[in-house]
Amino acid sequence: MFRIALIGAGNVASHLAEALESAGHRITEVFSRRKKNAVMLAEKLYQATPTDKLDFTASKADVFIIAVADAALSELLHQLQLPPQAIVVHTSGTLSMNLLAILNRPHGVFYPLQTFSKHKPVEWQRIPICLEASDKATIDILAQIASDISTNVYAISSEERKQIHLAAVIACNFANHLWHIAWQILKPIGIPFHLFRPLLQETLEKAMQMPPHKVQTGPAIRGDIPVMEQHLALLTAHSPLWAEIYQLISQSIAETAARTVAKT
Amino acid sequence: MFRIALIGAGNVASHLAEALESAGHRITEVFSRRKKNAVMLAEKLYQATPTDKLDFTASKADVFIIAVADAALSELLHQLQLPPQAIVVHTSGTLSMNLLAILNRPHGVFYPLQTFSKHKPVEWQRIPICLEASDKATIDILAQIASDISTNVYAISSEERKQIHLAAVIACNFANHLWHIAWQILKPIGIPFHLFRPLLQETLEKAMQMPPHKVQTGPAIRGDIPVMEQHLALLTAHSPLWAEIYQLISQSIAETAARTVAKT
Repeated sequence: MFRIALIGAGNVASHLAEALESAGHRITEVFSRRKKNAVMLAEKLYQATPTDKLDFTASKADVFIIAVADAALSELLHQLQLPPQAIVVHTSGTLSMNLLAILNRPHGVFYPLQTFSKHKPVEWQRIPICLEASDKATIDILAQIASDISTNVYAISSEERKQIHLAAVIACNFANHLWHIAWQILKPIGIPFHLFRPLLQETLEKAMQMPPHKVQTGPAIRGDIPVMEQHLALLTAHSPLWAEIYQLISQSIAETAARTVAKT
Repeated sequence: MFRIALIGAGNVASHLAEALESAGHRITEVFSRRKKNAVMLAEKLYQATPTDKLDFTASKADVFIIAVADAALSELLHQLQLPPQAIVVHTSGTLSMNLLAILNRPHGVFYPLQTFSKHKPVEWQRIPICLEASDKATIDILAQIASDISTNVYAISSEERKQIHLAAVIACNFANHLWHIAWQILKPIGIPFHLFRPLLQETLEKAMQMPPHKVQTGPAIRGDIPVMEQHLALLTAHSPLWAEIYQLISQSIAETAARTVAKT
């Protein structure tokens, strides 16, 4: 059992706090610049103290997990005061571990590869947790904590983590935006987007079972120019920018197919 | 129970044939230009006759379902000879129903909104089937057949179907290509793409529960320029075209957010 302080009270901090307590760890403090948010999260926990102060010199926590927006980290680090025994990690997909070196404590990264929403519980067991640490003792502690809440724990360098985060933005954030575009196309004809669920679920299943380029379908990979021209015309009426996106992704699909054929 | 002839023996035709027979209909003939393919599909069915001839004047089928590539339809229609009683439909997402008028039979469209793979069974009950017909009697027959295999049956005009197909290409084919890009980014660092399953599944769940733009996350919607610049640099090393796609989708995400804010 570790005593863990959470710096941050947003979605990542909230989900993490509950998972850690369920796994038998104890949250000692919850920090938020807005005291109210710290209080709200602390109330859901066993006996965490909410605070809006960054002086933790008297804290008994073994581990400090910083889960704040990337942009807020740097300023926060200049104000954060830690007890001598603490190790400290951040949860960012993009920021280097080395930023934490100025705290003069063993430090690391604890990056859960998931998108968290306020009221939606997540299944922690399957969420990959990417770890990095300044030294062997710290990675061992982080691995112990991570494996208490997930079966998918990985040691990942800062450089690798940046690539993973980039891939996640493209695979998830961008896919979600494509779904927004589809949603907007369907809206005027009164078709609810959830009709696409079986199609999207099946596409996802296939992409998980073999490399996505091997299950690529659609007009771009068939080189079906008439259909693509029809689509571009329809799409331009919605948004010229979307038509541009259509063209570039179709081009990339065609180039991928050409490269694959050239290799075989 | 209807007697149904299948013109085509590819993925759509195969999945449809088995679903129709499971629902109590009878497949009378299976046509493919390659006799071998017709034979292979017919062997899986109750008593379908395989053929590579398009003369069906002696057929007893009530309904002809044409499930061939869009590009092959036009030539096929000039050779197809139907019995007097038949109604005829195609299964295309993009082609107009009116193409079938030259056959001088009641005609329509039977478009299942799903992506079909050779060896992967699909759950027909939830697949939306989009119907269109030249007359009331025909739409009634199609609705009867469709509702035998799916609970999601819709009357959709040719114009609407084109929009649906466009939305499907963007939501599925293009999302799959983004997953290919992510796959390529992860490959050199030895991260298997299936680690992204919880993240993708969660993103999909959210997009099904509320309009996707309301659950949009990532650097583009936060206006996080440093992260986006880092991503563009990493991505350009993989492919300048992918970097261009990154830029345009990020721009579209930002514009969507700006429009939403402007409206509220």
